[in-house]
Amino acid sequence: MSPSRVPSPTSAPAGAVLRATIEYDGGRYRGWQSQVNARTVQGTLLAAARELWGVGVRLHGAGRTDAGVHALGQVASVHLPPRARAAAPAEALRSWNDLLPPDVNVLSLAPAPASFHARHDAVRRTYRYRIARRRTGFGKPYVYWAKDPLDVGAMDRAARLLAGRHDFASFCENPEGHDSTVVVVESAGVAAPPEADGLVLVRISASHFLWKMVRRVVGILLEVGAGRMSERDVARLFVERDERVARLTVPPSGLFLESVGYPGEADPPAPHPLRPAF
Amino acid sequence: MSPSRVPSPTSAPAGAVLRATIEYDGGRYRGWQSQVNARTVQGTLLAAARELWGVGVRLHGAGRTDAGVHALGQVASVHLPPRARAAAPAEALRSWNDLLPPDVNVLSLAPAPASFHARHDAVRRTYRYRIARRRTGFGKPYVYWAKDPLDVGAMDRAARLLAGRHDFASFCENPEGHDSTVVVVESAGVAAPPEADGLVLVRISASHFLWKMVRRVVGILLEVGAGRMSERDVARLFVERDERVARLTVPPSGLFLESVGYPGEADPPAPHPLRPAF
Repeated sequence: MSPSRVPSPTSAPAGAVLRATIEYDGGRYRGWQSQVNARTVQGTLLAAARELWGVGVRLHGAGRTDAGVHALGQVASVHLPPRARAAAPAEALRSWNDLLPPDVNVLSLAPAPASFHARHDAVRRTYRYRIARRRTGFGKPYVYWAKDPLDVGAMDRAARLLAGRHDFASFCENPEGHDSTVVVVESAGVAAPPEADGLVLVRISASHFLWKMVRRVVGILLEVGAGRMSERDVARLFVERDERVARLTVPPSGLFLESVGYPGEADPPAPHPLRPAF
Repeated sequence: MSPSRVPSPTSAPAGAVLRATIEYDGGRYRGWQSQVNARTVQGTLLAAARELWGVGVRLHGAGRTDAGVHALGQVASVHLPPRARAAAPAEALRSWNDLLPPDVNVLSLAPAPASFHARHDAVRRTYRYRIARRRTGFGKPYVYWAKDPLDVGAMDRAARLLAGRHDFASFCENPEGHDSTVVVVESAGVAAPPEADGLVLVRISASHFLWKMVRRVVGILLEVGAGRMSERDVARLFVERDERVARLTVPPSGLFLESVGYPGEADPPAPHPLRPAF
């Protein structure tokens, strides 16, 4: 390391932290988390951030979305290296976006407390899943097309059973890989508001999620909507582990990390139900 | 030709004609019109239609959209061969869509008079062009991003100058290739309605359009919006041909064939300004 790289106490504040809100089309990415030899959202953001702030920059996301999953409001903490070029957040936002491909967009960038960590500090993640009931020429990468007629009211009643503290082992992939499969779901619901133009939207908020949990929940709710499962069947999944529901996991195309909640903050307003829309 | 291919007067009505309304994402197509060795929308629809109705089927579109241009309401006439398997339009619609890729979608299919021809009979084409004023993670393939601040009122006033019968030679590519460059524009306008979520929408209706005319009109309106051209400059293009405006042609990504009008019919209602939206 050359002497010029030694941190100097007189340069830009060592350990300055920024909070970024990010939207992305996950279709061309192997998920959020950086991987060797794979195109990921975190890796893409980090490569651009290094050009801007130097190789010492670090970046942590609140939600580690899977391959193909999108985000409307992912939150990341950006830990700048000591001696990083200081720039007004508005200018840094523009410069960072100029270095990013068109399917990743930093929506906002603001100074955060030095202790801020996007994942550790988050207390709530909200996901939406978009179900289409008709074919469209534009929507396929952002929905799951359900061919069955759906009873949205029955789906909503079943979704509400998920709220509270439950063992979601039946609802996740590889439950053995988790320290615990108990999750506190804050809210879950299903609606087809007129402004969603025929889409059925599933929303679910929880402190954290297990692997593929939202996609399996949606698959189960679709069975309820089609009349092949009852509310009672859903409730039973909390007490009797059933691996047959694994086959119900819906594809990532319809899934969006909508927002992330932090202590003492109101959640950002929900994006338009048609975002991104067709 | 084998004897079984000779049309029989007792089979399904010879020359039955259907009218199809079609939406497509033009991003992966070399335009509407069938070409040898190129993927086109007409070619894609025709290949599927042949599986359904036999090799003798013919298909004509009202608007020959260029490479990369999208459609929300293209209209095509489908001329079935004699002896084509007769099916209820609703069933044929489903079967046809099942054979199509996800970026081409037949919205409706209905019997039409035997004389119907989608292109020859059309009296009006309406295009919309979508201009984004901010970066988004999803919109890029369906907008043009304008970086200049835009005076939408000035753009709208300039657009209204286009209405009426004018020589649009300055507004088209290769004017020599057209029999005439005189076009009657029924209406043209620019708006940024709140429900379009920040998008600026250009709409223009005319009996027909010259090559790249809409994209050049929009390029000129953007110069007006940015304050680099005046209404007077636009009006002068009708009387003094100016080839310098060729460089202003905007990309196809923001362009949509919105609807096609036929005599004695009301135009279909305009699709939501956010379609397809982000």
